[in-house]
Amino acid sequence: MIKATVYVTIKQSVLDPQGVAVQGALHSMGFNEVESVRIGKVMELTLDTTDRAEAEKRLTVMCEKLLANTVVEDYRYELEG
Amino acid sequence: MIKATVYVTIKQSVLDPQGVAVQGALHSMGFNEVESVRIGKVMELTLDTTDRAEAEKRLTVMCEKLLANTVVEDYRYELEG
Repeated sequence: MIKATVYVTIKQSVLDPQGVAVQGALHSMGFNEVESVRIGKVMELTLDTTDRAEAEKRLTVMCEKLLANTVVEDYRYELEG
Repeated sequence: MIKATVYVTIKQSVLDPQGVAVQGALHSMGFNEVESVRIGKVMELTLDTTDRAEAEKRLTVMCEKLLANTVVEDYRYELEG
């Protein structure tokens, strides 16, 4: 059993309207030290396999095909177990 | 300048329909080794301060008041810089 954590974040060059909205909300609550907010996704997958190398290979395909939109998003993952 | 990364995840006892949908999609694509998927948010905040202790204190308030719904979500954060 391998636990994989996939992080999908919007590319630096792409506007993140959700982050801008959260930043505005934080400012209006008095948190003026917040200079920028970028929001991404974190996905925790449990994989029923013990082959780490194969798991990495298949995770890359999952990210490219479904989990991330590689036009506007970056992804990275970590494996444990 | 402090960079904070906030992770907001749905509590283990709470159903994650988005994760279930992604798991179903991965299965239909042939990734049958995926046993479970839980989806959360990752937020990267840039804070214009150098006081780490104060930043932590204020981040906790931000999480409790806005960034996380503590009824159904857990949060944790890391500081760097």
